[in-house]
Amino acid sequence: MSHFTEIDNLAVNTLRLLSVDTVDAAQSGHPGAPLGMSPAAHVVWTKFLNLNPKNPDFCNRDRFVLSNGHAVAMLYSLLHLAGFNYKIEDLQQFRQLGSKTPGHPEFDLEGVEITTGPLGQGISNAVGMAIAQANLAATYNKPGFELSNNHTYVFLGDGCLQEGVASEAASLAGHLQLKNLIAIYDHNHITIDGSTDVSFTEDVLKRFEAYGWEVLTVENGDSDLDAIYNAIAQAKQSNKPTLIQNKTTIGYGSVNEGTHSVHGSPLKADDIAQLKTKFGFDPKKKFDVPQEVYDLYKTQLAQRGLESNKIWDQNFAQYKQKYPELGAEFQRRLNGELPANWDSTLPVYTPKDSAIATRKLSEMLLDSIHSTLPEVLGGSADLTPSNLTRWKEAKDFQPPSSGLGDYSGRYIRYGIREHAMGAILNGISAYGVGYKPYSGTFLNFVAYAAGAVRLSALSGHPIVWVATHDSIGVGEDGPTHQPIETLAHFRALPNLHVWRPADGNEVSAAYKVAIESKSTPSIIALTRQNLPQLEGTSIEKASKGGYVLQDVANPDLIFVATGSEVSLSVDAAKILASQNIKARVVSLPDWLSFDRQPEQYRKSVLPDGVPILSVEVLATNGWGKYAHQHIGMTTFGASGKAPLVFKHFGFTPEVVAEKAAKTVSFYKGKTIVSPLSSPF
Amino acid sequence: MSHFTEIDNLAVNTLRLLSVDTVDAAQSGHPGAPLGMSPAAHVVWTKFLNLNPKNPDFCNRDRFVLSNGHAVAMLYSLLHLAGFNYKIEDLQQFRQLGSKTPGHPEFDLEGVEITTGPLGQGISNAVGMAIAQANLAATYNKPGFELSNNHTYVFLGDGCLQEGVASEAASLAGHLQLKNLIAIYDHNHITIDGSTDVSFTEDVLKRFEAYGWEVLTVENGDSDLDAIYNAIAQAKQSNKPTLIQNKTTIGYGSVNEGTHSVHGSPLKADDIAQLKTKFGFDPKKKFDVPQEVYDLYKTQLAQRGLESNKIWDQNFAQYKQKYPELGAEFQRRLNGELPANWDSTLPVYTPKDSAIATRKLSEMLLDSIHSTLPEVLGGSADLTPSNLTRWKEAKDFQPPSSGLGDYSGRYIRYGIREHAMGAILNGISAYGVGYKPYSGTFLNFVAYAAGAVRLSALSGHPIVWVATHDSIGVGEDGPTHQPIETLAHFRALPNLHVWRPADGNEVSAAYKVAIESKSTPSIIALTRQNLPQLEGTSIEKASKGGYVLQDVANPDLIFVATGSEVSLSVDAAKILASQNIKARVVSLPDWLSFDRQPEQYRKSVLPDGVPILSVEVLATNGWGKYAHQHIGMTTFGASGKAPLVFKHFGFTPEVVAEKAAKTVSFYKGKTIVSPLSSPF
Ligand SMILES: [Ca+2]
Ligand SMILES: [Ca+2]
Repeated sequence: MSHFTEIDNLAVNTLRLLSVDTVDAAQSGHPGAPLGMSPAAHVVWTKFLNLNPKNPDFCNRDRFVLSNGHAVAMLYSLLHLAGFNYKIEDLQQFRQLGSKTPGHPEFDLEGVEITTGPLGQGISNAVGMAIAQANLAATYNKPGFELSNNHTYVFLGDGCLQEGVASEAASLAGHLQLKNLIAIYDHNHITIDGSTDVSFTEDVLKRFEAYGWEVLTVENGDSDLDAIYNAIAQAKQSNKPTLIQNKTTIGYGSVNEGTHSVHGSPLKADDIAQLKTKFGFDPKKKFDVPQEVYDLYKTQLAQRGLESNKIWDQNFAQYKQKYPELGAEFQRRLNGELPANWDSTLPVYTPKDSAIATRKLSEMLLDSIHSTLPEVLGGSADLTPSNLTRWKEAKDFQPPSSGLGDYSGRYIRYGIREHAMGAILNGISAYGVGYKPYSGTFLNFVAYAAGAVRLSALSGHPIVWVATHDSIGVGEDGPTHQPIETLAHFRALPNLHVWRPADGNEVSAAYKVAIESKSTPSIIALTRQNLPQLEGTSIEKASKGGYVLQDVANPDLIFVATGSEVSLSVDAAKILASQNIKARVVSLPDWLSFDRQPEQYRKSVLPDGVPILSVEVLATNGWGKYAHQHIGMTTFGASGKAPLVFKHFGFTPEVVAEKAAKTVSFYKGKTIVSPLSSPF
Repeated sequence: MSHFTEIDNLAVNTLRLLSVDTVDAAQSGHPGAPLGMSPAAHVVWTKFLNLNPKNPDFCNRDRFVLSNGHAVAMLYSLLHLAGFNYKIEDLQQFRQLGSKTPGHPEFDLEGVEITTGPLGQGISNAVGMAIAQANLAATYNKPGFELSNNHTYVFLGDGCLQEGVASEAASLAGHLQLKNLIAIYDHNHITIDGSTDVSFTEDVLKRFEAYGWEVLTVENGDSDLDAIYNAIAQAKQSNKPTLIQNKTTIGYGSVNEGTHSVHGSPLKADDIAQLKTKFGFDPKKKFDVPQEVYDLYKTQLAQRGLESNKIWDQNFAQYKQKYPELGAEFQRRLNGELPANWDSTLPVYTPKDSAIATRKLSEMLLDSIHSTLPEVLGGSADLTPSNLTRWKEAKDFQPPSSGLGDYSGRYIRYGIREHAMGAILNGISAYGVGYKPYSGTFLNFVAYAAGAVRLSALSGHPIVWVATHDSIGVGEDGPTHQPIETLAHFRALPNLHVWRPADGNEVSAAYKVAIESKSTPSIIALTRQNLPQLEGTSIEKASKGGYVLQDVANPDLIFVATGSEVSLSVDAAKILASQNIKARVVSLPDWLSFDRQPEQYRKSVLPDGVPILSVEVLATNGWGKYAHQHIGMTTFGASGKAPLVFKHFGFTPEVVAEKAAKTVSFYKGKTIVSPLSSPF
């Protein structure tokens, strides 16, 4: 017996034509994928998806991720039909500046779970969402109280499957046995260059089986709604993540169906007309939604979701009575709050404390805060003993059958998969319920995840990268492992904290800002080598991103430095003092936090009238924002013992002091405008 | 019958102990992998590898890539045994500053084919080398003249296999049926975090079968030399690329063998002593090489290679007589030369020519030069119709059985695999014989390949990225596709040309410099939208990286701009002229080329005494090097029609002119030091 009626077919075609009209109104966008994927989308949304359009943030909702984000016209159409706050007028404004229907799905839009478009990200984000769900369930579910049991559904195309980030994420998802993850692969044989025969002839299902996934096939995804239904129902029974290969025709119904010419350009007017006629619609009408279709989405999606949300609320009310502590904690996380005084256990240091590598200070900090913050999920891309990212009593997040941990574990072994790790962090964060994930790798290899880091910043996921081995201080491993351009790269991204702490108090400040951040991600760059605890640092001062560490009256020069070069600048200042040159030392561990301070404060740190010299053992690009002259790296690094490598590149107090003295002479008698001063 | 004698076992243990002593001398490095991989390395080097230590650049040599580059102590030991220019004293200087034995393999070292260490790169580079070989053979081989038939051997570990870049490359290699590629997977179950059970439990062989590879297994890679031999012999017979899973014990022989504690730290003294005793060596001797072992490498490697090189030379001499044109071309490429006057067909434009998108100008240029330069191998990561990277008559590089092209084709369909594409470019370039590969993708997605781009710059592979859609000019696709930080990122890398041409002449200059470059890669950022042909441009001037485009006597202000903002600045200068503010306009399409000009020239373009305002619709980070004030992007972009998006962010002649006027007022009466002036 079929689960569907003629109204479902009508709804599928309505969804197709809404997408086509949306792209047509913009005269820009991608009609091909929506025409092919609408049947599967309709089945998932009306038969399976647990969503409450009246409460889009319902925490146990199913997550729907459109990994092939260029099919966004279909997503907006679905959100409209389901009763989210998208009107026909919004669809008509598709891809217009300032509209609520931009060219790709954006995280901050209602009903959109995550920003997609850059291929391979969405499926990897979905792995993160599935991890978050598994952890939430293992942490809070109790007999009779299934607070968390949602599924994550992800649509993806051939493009996503070719991207390495998706391969990494899929391999990890298979290892972790994330059975709540269901991926629907729109297998239409077409990408922008034409047939997938030109470059993508692998056996995808076999590959996913090799990863440990369940794999299923729907032979006719263009019209066999029951086959789609049965595949999803079967996937929900599996103990593994499932990939459903759904065979479809790109641009189904168009005169150019099955070719790449329907991928990325609006259909022509006469094509749209024949399409509407073919589907039994009036070719003269645009954005035509039969009332039965609205009714179907109302009864089969909106009402189901509303009811489910109501039951969950009642259930949670009882849960809070029976498990007051856990219930309060869950409620706090739902409220987006941190525990009161959570930061009281942040380590504080004085200059009497010994010199310690900032990566080690980070480990000590994690040891001191992990028990206060159950929402923190740590991990490393196979560099745990180097990144020092694992607190002492951490339990691994692992499938229980592995014997290596369970889903309540909060330390994730990402394997050597930096890009997937970055995308998974975004997915965990987007899942909500206060999750605060962090990752570990060498600073130099955060670049492997650049695509995901960019989306963290663009979407405002307040995730954290613990990025150790932050300079030529890496030493013997040499230039392949020594970052040069890395901080310049990430500082050029809007909305990203890029910390490079100089000592223990600055490490605490970096974590304090990172954990309290609601919508800004953080990279915390940490040393391999020991650094002294400095006079003049404090969590409060460092939290401003930049501050005067050591001062003198009427300075002749200001050093501005980060990380390991702060103590170097302090030492250089001492040499200068012996030459009667007075130098202020400014520590600037995070540019973004500093930029967010009032102008008056910033100008008090870096005023007009004094030459400012930046000192940082990385590329100097970007330092023109704060300093007149720069000491940095102009080449790649070198393999050798770290102290010798520093010396080789001129990072000694003597050389820095000499360059500083030359800078003072150079600017003598000149008007000196602070780089912070701007005419507009 | 065995192919090996007791001397081979002695040689394997010699290789193991040389590696251990090398790491021990440095008190830094990775002894575990060499102890496990030495048997396979010995078999490959003495039974298969065609190398001539007296002529390391012999063009038909087999390529050996150590993708798990941390095992480099073994590579240096092999190079020493084989008679390359590595003495025992060089091994003793392992990882010391300035030595010829740095911490990871570096491309410019003798006998090292490619820089490795960042995981996943080497195997992907090897795919590029195999592509180059297939193309070379298809282009030049003639009956009786097999100028090219080398194999590419690559060693890799669990780490490389987890990286997405390797997955992308392996999928493409399977599609391309690169039978000359043999990968030996050191399967030791250990990574830095411990057992691969914690994160890597997929079925690797099944995955590679799904990619279209031949897969073989050696059960006892610790000592069964014949099994290794047979597997490789079988691989050479296959019509596909082959992955040999070679089961080994990390740190074989050490008291901690089979654990991650032997991965990344030197063995303890007593462990080394017991190891030497176990292998029948004197525990008191270091760097001990029995004469029989030297003799074996002499007869079974050096002499074979010398002979092979000699035969090849004779063969090539005859080839040149029989095929004078092809022979001369091959010889030219071996000499590292371009055809005489190759650049005479570069397009030249005047202001009367119509406005054209620079991506389209790039396509026109490729159309005009491809037939002159058979060493150019193009391609795109599935964006051919957007990147416009394919010249009209291009033939695809495809396996002949596909019916879509053949190996003499020079256009590679990379699929949606940017990172692998970047690594493959490096491999093609490293292969030599003049190969000059270029790739295509959106500028924003070059970031997916950041790991490979970094290695292009570090190793000096003069490859080219054709990077289109270079700003918010992308328009409707929105912020996920609009680069902001991208140029700041890549400009911060040493040794990388980052071009952003303003018109057709500048496009020609970018390609001229890129193609003539011997050791600097290039990114050429191109617009989606049309740009006018400017007054004042020329290939010659633009080749300097920066020049005065339009000048006035005693300027009040200097605009410095790139790409689409050059014509914008010209228009703003016109508005200023009507306000009696005189503005020079400088075009700075490539910072690196400009930085390489004499100081006098640079200061003539950007002198002291005039305020300089940069205009570029990207992050301003880095512009402090050339300008005092900056107009740029401080947020991510937005989805909308491109002209409206430009206007929204203030990129109009009026707004730019207004900010320029404020800049002139701001600096009035102040000493103005050119950012090019430095006290040290
Ligand atoms: Ca949202
Ligand atoms: Ca070399």
